[in-house]
Amino acid sequence: MNIILLNPEDIDLNQGAFISDERRINHIRTIHKAQIGDKMKLGLLNGAMGEGLITDIQSNKISFQLNLTQAAPQSLPLTLILALPRPKMLRRILQTVATLGVKNIYLINSYRVEKSYWQTPFLQEEAIRAQLTLGLEQGGDTHLPEVHLIKRFKPFVEDQLPAIANGSKALVAHPYTNEICPRSTSGAVTLAVGPEGGFIDYEIDMLAKAGFAAVHLGDRIMRVETAIPYLLARIF
Amino acid sequence: MNIILLNPEDIDLNQGAFISDERRINHIRTIHKAQIGDKMKLGLLNGAMGEGLITDIQSNKISFQLNLTQAAPQSLPLTLILALPRPKMLRRILQTVATLGVKNIYLINSYRVEKSYWQTPFLQEEAIRAQLTLGLEQGGDTHLPEVHLIKRFKPFVEDQLPAIANGSKALVAHPYTNEICPRSTSGAVTLAVGPEGGFIDYEIDMLAKAGFAAVHLGDRIMRVETAIPYLLARIF
Repeated sequence: MNIILLNPEDIDLNQGAFISDERRINHIRTIHKAQIGDKMKLGLLNGAMGEGLITDIQSNKISFQLNLTQAAPQSLPLTLILALPRPKMLRRILQTVATLGVKNIYLINSYRVEKSYWQTPFLQEEAIRAQLTLGLEQGGDTHLPEVHLIKRFKPFVEDQLPAIANGSKALVAHPYTNEICPRSTSGAVTLAVGPEGGFIDYEIDMLAKAGFAAVHLGDRIMRVETAIPYLLARIF
Repeated sequence: MNIILLNPEDIDLNQGAFISDERRINHIRTIHKAQIGDKMKLGLLNGAMGEGLITDIQSNKISFQLNLTQAAPQSLPLTLILALPRPKMLRRILQTVATLGVKNIYLINSYRVEKSYWQTPFLQEEAIRAQLTLGLEQGGDTHLPEVHLIKRFKPFVEDQLPAIANGSKALVAHPYTNEICPRSTSGAVTLAVGPEGGFIDYEIDMLAKAGFAAVHLGDRIMRVETAIPYLLARIF
């Protein structure tokens, strides 16, 4: 946790705040080993960040005096279109993309996405938010990404995706193509990443019709959770 | 598994091979759903790669006719010096670095590495090899990385590291420095990556004396398993 994220209800009227949940309290007490008088990096969820001076530590409550004067780090100008990963990987990927500053995520169906993946409790709103929060706390950011669940590939790619990608460089990561992924682009990017095993040809064709150029990352085929940070480091 | 890796003992004298272990057989039968007459991507561990024509499928044995005429993909000109991660993350990271083409890995101690991490069974030679093999099978490579275990930081950094890094660009990833990580470098790189929480100042100083420049990756602090693919995509 490189920043402690405060919810609006944690804040009081006099530039103070307190937290009373076990997760954050344990972290501050056992990992940071913080004491009264210490300053910690704090941020208001979807708001400013800065410092919190610890004014009191109880077993079930830690109080701060706030000085939140900094803006959150810049977001990536990226919309990520991601074939729904298997549940365990989904959790890590949500954390990773939140850490890396992605703010728009569409989790979509695809031929090689197992139907059962859509039943996972990790797709419930609270579960998604919990993973995104972990990612923000790691990265030191306050702005929660938006996650959209898209259970039908074809109507999404035909009817919604062209408008979503409009004005951006639209790329789909695909091992079997001749074009290498661009480096250090400027401007907005819409990036589609397939499931383990990749998008099928029909899907790549549909994405091409929606304006997406297929790009590869070299000879090596990466797992999705490796490919995502690799792609973002390369593209931005 | 984007390549089936054969051990020397899997090969017979007439350009044939057979595998008889459950892991590879199950994968070929249930994921690839391969049939007699199908061709699969095969490679000889630490050797050439190419195609295998399936000549027989039994429940406990699959036989191939081999045509191994391709070289493995190019390795990264990288030596990775990595503070020993916690065991669960270690396994994933070994897979990831093998997938990405890293061939020299030093797992080192550091102030923020918990002593108990050195006791994990995942550091046994066979366990390391199993994870590296998974990574090679994912990436489509045949050459096993070498992994060195370094339980004492100071003598390693003082006495061995300067020779290891000699002639390469030596970098240590560190969030708290002014220099941003270079992009698209040419030539060999020695890259040091700290534990969760980072190297301590004393360690950064020692690495600096050994010729390592501290470089950051921007405002966001990444977990080690995110930082590694991100760093490699950026540096190479």
